[in-house]
Amino acid sequence: MSPLDADLSRVVAPVEQGLESMRRVLAETLTTDTPAVSDMTDHISRFRGKQLRGALVLLTADALGNQHEDLPEVAAIVELIHLATLVHDDVLDEAAVRRRVASVNQRWDNQVAVLLGDFLYARAFHLSTTLTSRIASQMLSIATQKICAGEIEQAAHRYDFEQSQEHYESIAGAKTAVLYSVACELGARYPSREDETCVMFSEFGWAIGLAFQIADDVLDVVGDAEVVGKAVGTDVQDGKVTLPVLYVYQAADRATRGRIRDAYTMPDIENRAEKLSEVCDLQPGVEYALARARVLVDGALATLETLPDSPARSALKSLGPYVLERRW
Amino acid sequence: MSPLDADLSRVVAPVEQGLESMRRVLAETLTTDTPAVSDMTDHISRFRGKQLRGALVLLTADALGNQHEDLPEVAAIVELIHLATLVHDDVLDEAAVRRRVASVNQRWDNQVAVLLGDFLYARAFHLSTTLTSRIASQMLSIATQKICAGEIEQAAHRYDFEQSQEHYESIAGAKTAVLYSVACELGARYPSREDETCVMFSEFGWAIGLAFQIADDVLDVVGDAEVVGKAVGTDVQDGKVTLPVLYVYQAADRATRGRIRDAYTMPDIENRAEKLSEVCDLQPGVEYALARARVLVDGALATLETLPDSPARSALKSLGPYVLERRW
Repeated sequence: MSPLDADLSRVVAPVEQGLESMRRVLAETLTTDTPAVSDMTDHISRFRGKQLRGALVLLTADALGNQHEDLPEVAAIVELIHLATLVHDDVLDEAAVRRRVASVNQRWDNQVAVLLGDFLYARAFHLSTTLTSRIASQMLSIATQKICAGEIEQAAHRYDFEQSQEHYESIAGAKTAVLYSVACELGARYPSREDETCVMFSEFGWAIGLAFQIADDVLDVVGDAEVVGKAVGTDVQDGKVTLPVLYVYQAADRATRGRIRDAYTMPDIENRAEKLSEVCDLQPGVEYALARARVLVDGALATLETLPDSPARSALKSLGPYVLERRW
Repeated sequence: MSPLDADLSRVVAPVEQGLESMRRVLAETLTTDTPAVSDMTDHISRFRGKQLRGALVLLTADALGNQHEDLPEVAAIVELIHLATLVHDDVLDEAAVRRRVASVNQRWDNQVAVLLGDFLYARAFHLSTTLTSRIASQMLSIATQKICAGEIEQAAHRYDFEQSQEHYESIAGAKTAVLYSVACELGARYPSREDETCVMFSEFGWAIGLAFQIADDVLDVVGDAEVVGKAVGTDVQDGKVTLPVLYVYQAADRATRGRIRDAYTMPDIENRAEKLSEVCDLQPGVEYALARARVLVDGALATLETLPDSPARSALKSLGPYVLERRW
């Protein structure tokens, strides 16, 4: 176990029992009686990642003393929606590997990967309709719209080196922060709480999620595929201008800007991320982006000081180093 | 207006007012404040097809005297889910044209087409969570799972000339009959009816929907693209063995079977449907399939005799010729 894996174990330790229940719900939910579908859900259960979104539902609830019996199911639904987005992301990115396992589009093909993602979304929504409160259905269907709209907006702004940092953050936020935010807010709100604490946790999740995505975008330009566990350089390949690149581009002189654009667009460049790192110094952009992530994390952690001390609050606080120092 | 367009206008006439409400809900629901998404939802609103699934919700309700005020929204949700499946189907089929309008994948690309379909599903589910009764959310999320599982099963059985007619019908049913069935059942059941009449309408919708899909599969092997308004021959191209072909194959001698398989699989055949029609006589398969569709329609229409006479019942009965005689 790496030091950061150990960090994550510490983060989720206070809700380990809830996570076990969540995993049982997930395993049941991924069981189907259609043979062709079962082959695929068996396969994707091997993607099992950090399950941090599900853990956030449970940690937030625990930090607030919310012990509603539906919470492990709420956490499982959040994880299922995340899984559906991953399956479709891999189609969009033409990714071959996901968490060291072949992606669905690679193992089968794009057609069934699209269908499997749809199936998982529908299954997640169905599970949400069986819960006591409708707020999970409502909040998660809104969140899913935001995620998709953000990705469509991102696709429309490929090769857009003139976009503002705010625009970048709205897109990066839609990719990751939306689901982190709704996970934390559901932990606070479910089944019916409505107060400032819910808003605070929604903002906490947004900030942590955005910091996580910024760190992910940094890894995509400077990470090592072996360590990260998936292909890197895909953003550059796909025309996505992320914060480290945006910063370097906007600070660069005219000639360097031209070379950066060329690295993204000239035909016959095999490894565009490598080319990009040759034509400019990415380090200031990486540092700027990581500093922005740190500001977000620090702001989020400060809001936790208003809560009484508890193992769950400590766990949420330890997300800081986890998000900022991870290398995968 | 062709005679069959006129038929369809007659079918939906008794619920024209509810359909107008449904169309208003659809138009509102397709409005978004993300510019890149609005471009796409504006585009797909031009796909507006027969809206028969939405009409079935309203016709069934009307035939049973169900006048719940949510019904136009229920109908709109059914249409939205259908629209989402169409957008993803076009990606799966690599279709360039949908109802004489460029498909989303053709006008933009596969990436955003996948995302737009996801967005529409999420929007449909969200709309369902705002209704009085949860049964629309529940039944439609189950239906969507069945649709996706059926398409995955179909993909797993490409080039399967040994499948039974029952297996073919379970797949064809998942593609079309599931949503017809749930549309009719919701019209009967919403918000809370539970009796034999609901089951009867679920079965009615299944039979009509399966007949419709069989007719569609026939058009794909023998239809004219100009008349049908979308590419034909795509099933053969994509390895889908539909009822007319299955019948001809299973009745054929060994040599003909080999030639049929070759038409599906040999490399460098530009138009596989044309090749297929050269190597075997498809007519007996077409007649067999259309006879099966007629049996389904006749059985469905017979069950309507148990209802009191009404304009809506007459309209549902006139679906028979519409499904069996349509050429698009």
